[in-house]
Amino acid sequence: MSLRAANPVWLGLDIGGTKIAVVLMDQELRPLSGEIFPTQTADADALVAGIETAVCAALTAAQVTAGQITAVGVGVPGLVNPATGEVHLAVNLNLQHYPLGTVLTERLNAPVYLENDVRMAALGAFQYVQQQKPVSNLAYLSIGTGVSAGLILDGQLYRGSHGMAGEIGHIIVDPAGEMCACGLRGCLETIIAGPAIARQWQAACADFDDEKEITAVSVYNAAQQGDPSAQTVIEHVSTTIARAIQWLVMAYDVEHIVFGGGVAKSGAAFLDPVLHALAKLSAGSPLAQTMLDAEKMMLLPSDYNAATWGSILLARKNHKPGLSTEI
Amino acid sequence: MSLRAANPVWLGLDIGGTKIAVVLMDQELRPLSGEIFPTQTADADALVAGIETAVCAALTAAQVTAGQITAVGVGVPGLVNPATGEVHLAVNLNLQHYPLGTVLTERLNAPVYLENDVRMAALGAFQYVQQQKPVSNLAYLSIGTGVSAGLILDGQLYRGSHGMAGEIGHIIVDPAGEMCACGLRGCLETIIAGPAIARQWQAACADFDDEKEITAVSVYNAAQQGDPSAQTVIEHVSTTIARAIQWLVMAYDVEHIVFGGGVAKSGAAFLDPVLHALAKLSAGSPLAQTMLDAEKMMLLPSDYNAATWGSILLARKNHKPGLSTEI
Repeated sequence: MSLRAANPVWLGLDIGGTKIAVVLMDQELRPLSGEIFPTQTADADALVAGIETAVCAALTAAQVTAGQITAVGVGVPGLVNPATGEVHLAVNLNLQHYPLGTVLTERLNAPVYLENDVRMAALGAFQYVQQQKPVSNLAYLSIGTGVSAGLILDGQLYRGSHGMAGEIGHIIVDPAGEMCACGLRGCLETIIAGPAIARQWQAACADFDDEKEITAVSVYNAAQQGDPSAQTVIEHVSTTIARAIQWLVMAYDVEHIVFGGGVAKSGAAFLDPVLHALAKLSAGSPLAQTMLDAEKMMLLPSDYNAATWGSILLARKNHKPGLSTEI
Repeated sequence: MSLRAANPVWLGLDIGGTKIAVVLMDQELRPLSGEIFPTQTADADALVAGIETAVCAALTAAQVTAGQITAVGVGVPGLVNPATGEVHLAVNLNLQHYPLGTVLTERLNAPVYLENDVRMAALGAFQYVQQQKPVSNLAYLSIGTGVSAGLILDGQLYRGSHGMAGEIGHIIVDPAGEMCACGLRGCLETIIAGPAIARQWQAACADFDDEKEITAVSVYNAAQQGDPSAQTVIEHVSTTIARAIQWLVMAYDVEHIVFGGGVAKSGAAFLDPVLHALAKLSAGSPLAQTMLDAEKMMLLPSDYNAATWGSILLARKNHKPGLSTEI
């Protein structure tokens, strides 16, 4: 009997623009080890070498060998083709038309399943919510450097015809608004993405110290500490997020919206103004009050890595034992 | 052998606010007869009696008996529960919490399957498009008295958790816009629904003859004949429809948007300004140009009744022979 068959493990990877998170789990989905390494984005070789380093560290920490890996799930921040394992475009990883799935399959000597990172996180969020109560439909709204939604519809991951379903960051909110990097004007991302939140506060503060690094988190912190200009920015951002939530709920009729991404990491400082904006938006409408009930809006615990969970769940779901590379 | 088993037929009903369309088809989905009757909306009894009259006329025209009906699909303009056959709310039919499925099952002595009329039309549109090429994802955007979308995702009808998926008529387009009947301000319906189009032209024409009945179709006609105020209204409406299409495409990543409802009946007068608005919206964005390609936008032939087709397809799909009431 092979070692793999004896003590098989699953590997989940979440490759972000700055960090790679790796998790190893056993057959019963008990975590064996977890590692976080910086992402190498100089070129594809550096990226892959960095992934190998992270995986080796996780294997060592869990005292398992590469041969025990049954399958690997990999979340990638970009447009991927799960069928071919190709990354079409991942700007933050400096990748375009790169066969990441094939390369990692060779290096790790195990089947590799790729998917967009927000979809992986949606699968992870779905698993988390399912453990509390049965649900069928859920949207994972990721607000970070970019904005997009991962969708579980009728219990299944929904990708759309070109893997673009849920790419709501480029939905036009304000036709007279700011130019977006995509070439449109007034996209959702130009208001609620992390860099946009920072930019709006910077613009609101005339005497701003240019040297100071502003992030969305620092705007949320300042708003909580009573800074009026930061509060104005967060109110505008939250009102726009409430509109995006209304679209998601009316479009998909989901039971839950789960928030993720760097901006949502501000926790209650993020969620409270969003709930306030939703209540204000719904005030005159019984339909909106029902559809946008605060109970539907969820943050995951900060120690639950939805994307690595989702990566392992996807690998488990897609893996056909007959196709594994037995040692 | 029963008559039903010998020459089984399928019955499709599309119950509108003003008209009931009935179609009878044989096992090979060849139409046997089709009838259109006015809808009786005084109360539920009148409605059901009117439906029976329409069905009898269709049976007589096709020279078949009620006993030959295998199953019936019924499209209802409102919120229905397909599992119980209850109509929760159908304002235009003057129905609230009415067991239409149970009542019709008794009257027609055949299994009856209810669904929202726009979803039935989405099924019918999907069947039409499928006969030309294989597709997996499609949105049927109905623009009439109300606005909503029926969705086929991964080849299946998608309803959402409460049958509200695709109810995009109440998505907020203009937070400072007109009050909507739903209690929100600036909903999509306040700009692109048929009555809203008529109202905007009426408001634009100071010397308007109040006696003259204005409909969306008459605004489209006037715009085609060169009336500048009608053209301004249609341009604003089409720009807003283009934004709604962008939401639908980015939300669901569908291969086609099929237009239906009374407003879309204006045909090219409806579609051409929408395509123009989409081209204008996408001008600076390669992503938007790809996603909003004119090839994706479709009108069905005017003689193709998508809702009755969908009703029959749903009845066929849901009908389990063992459950039929054999005569």
